[in-house]
Amino acid sequence: MPTFSQDELYKRIETSFLRQGMMQNLGATLLRVEPGLCEVSLPHSERVTQQQGSFHGGAMGALADIAGGYAALTAAPPEMEVTTVEYKINFLASFAGGELRATGQLVKAGKRIIVATAEVVHVDADGKQTICAVMQQTLVPVPKTY
Amino acid sequence: MPTFSQDELYKRIETSFLRQGMMQNLGATLLRVEPGLCEVSLPHSERVTQQQGSFHGGAMGALADIAGGYAALTAAPPEMEVTTVEYKINFLASFAGGELRATGQLVKAGKRIIVATAEVVHVDADGKQTICAVMQQTLVPVPKTY
Amino acid sequence: MPTFSQDELYKRIETSFLRQGMMQNLGATLLRVEPGLCEVSLPHSERVTQQQGSFHGGAMGALADIAGGYAALTAAPPEMEVTTVEYKINFLASFAGGELRATGQLVKAGKRIIVATAEVVHVDADGKQTICAVMQQTLVPVPKTY
Amino acid sequence: MPTFSQDELYKRIETSFLRQGMMQNLGATLLRVEPGLCEVSLPHSERVTQQQGSFHGGAMGALADIAGGYAALTAAPPEMEVTTVEYKINFLASFAGGELRATGQLVKAGKRIIVATAEVVHVDADGKQTICAVMQQTLVPVPKTY
Repeated sequence: MPTFSQDELYKRIETSFLRQGMMQNLGATLLRVEPGLCEVSLPHSERVTQQQGSFHGGAMGALADIAGGYAALTAAPPEMEVTTVEYKINFLASFAGGELRATGQLVKAGKRIIVATAEVVHVDADGKQTICAVMQQTLVPVPKTY
Repeated sequence: MPTFSQDELYKRIETSFLRQGMMQNLGATLLRVEPGLCEVSLPHSERVTQQQGSFHGGAMGALADIAGGYAALTAAPPEMEVTTVEYKINFLASFAGGELRATGQLVKAGKRIIVATAEVVHVDADGKQTICAVMQQTLVPVPKTY
Repeated sequence: MPTFSQDELYKRIETSFLRQGMMQNLGATLLRVEPGLCEVSLPHSERVTQQQGSFHGGAMGALADIAGGYAALTAAPPEMEVTTVEYKINFLASFAGGELRATGQLVKAGKRIIVATAEVVHVDADGKQTICAVMQQTLVPVPKTY
Repeated sequence: MPTFSQDELYKRIETSFLRQGMMQNLGATLLRVEPGLCEVSLPHSERVTQQQGSFHGGAMGALADIAGGYAALTAAPPEMEVTTVEYKINFLASFAGGELRATGQLVKAGKRIIVATAEVVHVDADGKQTICAVMQQTLVPVPKTY
């Protein structure tokens, strides 16, 4: 892995994160960045609901995708970004209220192919956590263009 | 499959679609509903971008998820809904501008397990279409609660 | 796609296929090769059963994997092979007797990433065909080493 | 989870495992069974190779599928079995020689839907372990018919 200080690593991910119009729109925030790990959160609001008022699967998927993607980015060379080739997500439970937290973890950072996983938990008003999705993801390094 | 008239079928899907806060928020619209098929569209806007200004993978995933899900719903008994167990999506190309169109298709409607696929194409200002994602999805029927 | 004659294309796939100890062991045969397409078959035998005597999911998975992989190989440069990065398979029905036929199809042959799908059907003694699995797969080109 | 003694649990899994013609054919053995966990191994032989002599992806997939499936079975009611709805597997590295060990783990045992994961490692002649595949899987409980 490239050697960034903890601050540089956080800054690197935050710079990309804040450029994502969709994450701003949904109301997601960046919680934690470590080598090979990234945690993001998404509070419940009408902006992220499905037809029954619970968090939309698409919101869980988007959150898991970027948590895994940024976990992968922590291990990419400085001049590179990563892009998602594909992911697969299982939904385990559905919730309204509270917030979602997705934690992405790097499984293997190959030169050509990067594999990551993410776990999404729901946190209710009392702080109770329940796992609600697991994701497995493939990414590739790509040149940074901005 | 249950026998709905074409109008009833469209109404059924539209009722659920319009209740999805996230789809309203992203700016998605329902284009077409047929037995075993559903097409939805999403114009490009700042609400759905990733860090480079292209459509966010999470937006493509959410669009594919509901296209497949509503294709499945066209085949569910009247008093039932469907819920996504899991999906897997491959991203083939990335675009800014224009709009995305996701077409979901029912593969098999079992009593307990439903399988659907979806294809996402990008349509540019000149109407040129390019495939940009393919998805494979598992759903289950669940009782309707609203 | 590279320009091979139909015969050269078949030969190319067959050469690799016959080197696969596992396919020989399971009893699989190569049925059809076209640009972007490959069909393989596997007759039912005790070598490929699960605990209830039906075709093992692992046999369906292996068959779908190589059907998709060889569909991808038909589009690779002459000095290259392809290797599977990942696949996802849904099982739709389970059968004993007869044979399985898996047809792989190329979805997109990128320079770095190749995407293919495969459909597995069961063919019974009377020739009746029933779909029993669908697969979606990611591959990469790799240098040929034999 | 149902209450089986450790011996009963092992016996339960072994009974099913020994009935799988394909696992006998490939040369797989059952290593370990605990509540929510199952480990199986597969030594390298010509019965499980791809065209370059390494373990076939289909062999890794089959091994991961049954490791996850038996981890799920440890949590099923006594009169039930489980069947795989779908799985997704990423291949991380390729090996010849030595053996593969797949460890399946239960993620969530719902009444209708069970989710499991599996990790496949390669063990070389010196005992050195390298991760070579990760899998995520959906299963359903089904009545036992034998």
